[in-house]
Amino acid sequence: MTYTIREATRDDAETILALIHALALYEREPEAVKASVDDILRDGFGPRPLFQCLLAECDGRAAGFSLYFYKWSTWTGRGTLHLEDLFVEPDFRGRGIGLGLLRRLAAIAVDQGCKRMEWEVLDWNQPARDFYHQLGAVHKEGWYPYRLDGDALCVVAEQARDA
Amino acid sequence: MTYTIREATRDDAETILALIHALALYEREPEAVKASVDDILRDGFGPRPLFQCLLAECDGRAAGFSLYFYKWSTWTGRGTLHLEDLFVEPDFRGRGIGLGLLRRLAAIAVDQGCKRMEWEVLDWNQPARDFYHQLGAVHKEGWYPYRLDGDALCVVAEQARDA
Repeated sequence: MTYTIREATRDDAETILALIHALALYEREPEAVKASVDDILRDGFGPRPLFQCLLAECDGRAAGFSLYFYKWSTWTGRGTLHLEDLFVEPDFRGRGIGLGLLRRLAAIAVDQGCKRMEWEVLDWNQPARDFYHQLGAVHKEGWYPYRLDGDALCVVAEQARDA
Repeated sequence: MTYTIREATRDDAETILALIHALALYEREPEAVKASVDDILRDGFGPRPLFQCLLAECDGRAAGFSLYFYKWSTWTGRGTLHLEDLFVEPDFRGRGIGLGLLRRLAAIAVDQGCKRMEWEVLDWNQPARDFYHQLGAVHKEGWYPYRLDGDALCVVAEQARDA
């Protein structure tokens, strides 16, 4: 069965959320998703979208997706296409859908004048890492991602107001 | 000597580029910077800015900067403030300027409805990592940053056109 790839529209918001949940389950963080359909409608399909999304379909069923947006790189001085999520439903794996999504994203990046694509991978996801290496992607060794959120973010923000 | 923090304007483009170069030198990648003043003017101060920048000054001299933009998180369903660069010139360290910049960024993130700030740190930069940990930030252990660029990006993009 062949697949097709198209840009998602606001009618796909529930499908996108279901795929986000399916990916979080695969990433062993099923409780991590706080996003709602309203969040997706507001931030993906409002007047100033914060992300874009490609949907892969097989026989009318959602088979996978990629959600991406643009960042800016101080080193290249150009946009970077940031891949936030790439996921293919287990039933639809082995058909080249993930590769098809990545190729499409690379073409979008080049068309938009980006010099890079970037994303994060879980260390234990060796099949994904092998797949990315085969495409010529590299692990940015020596760079560690950091996060500040929750109460700690609020505390630091309050210190700015007190200063 | 106290310091001040303000939003950068297009008149600061050359100062910003000099700080980007100074940071790259500190990161042991002095040749890595390809960005130009024109890139900064176009992408930071044009009709649709791709980044924003805070400048710290001491006695009329540029002492440090932070360059940031917004991403979107599929898990939180909200914007994330992404800190691309944070740097204080060596002559001005030890005065709390880095902390002042981070507090200001945290306040901006909260005001904009972001649930997170994120950034990347070099593994050998232990002073920076200690500083971030003291603030309550965490290393997202198990997540590896990946990059696809240069010829490899172009090859994958071409495969999309051939498919």
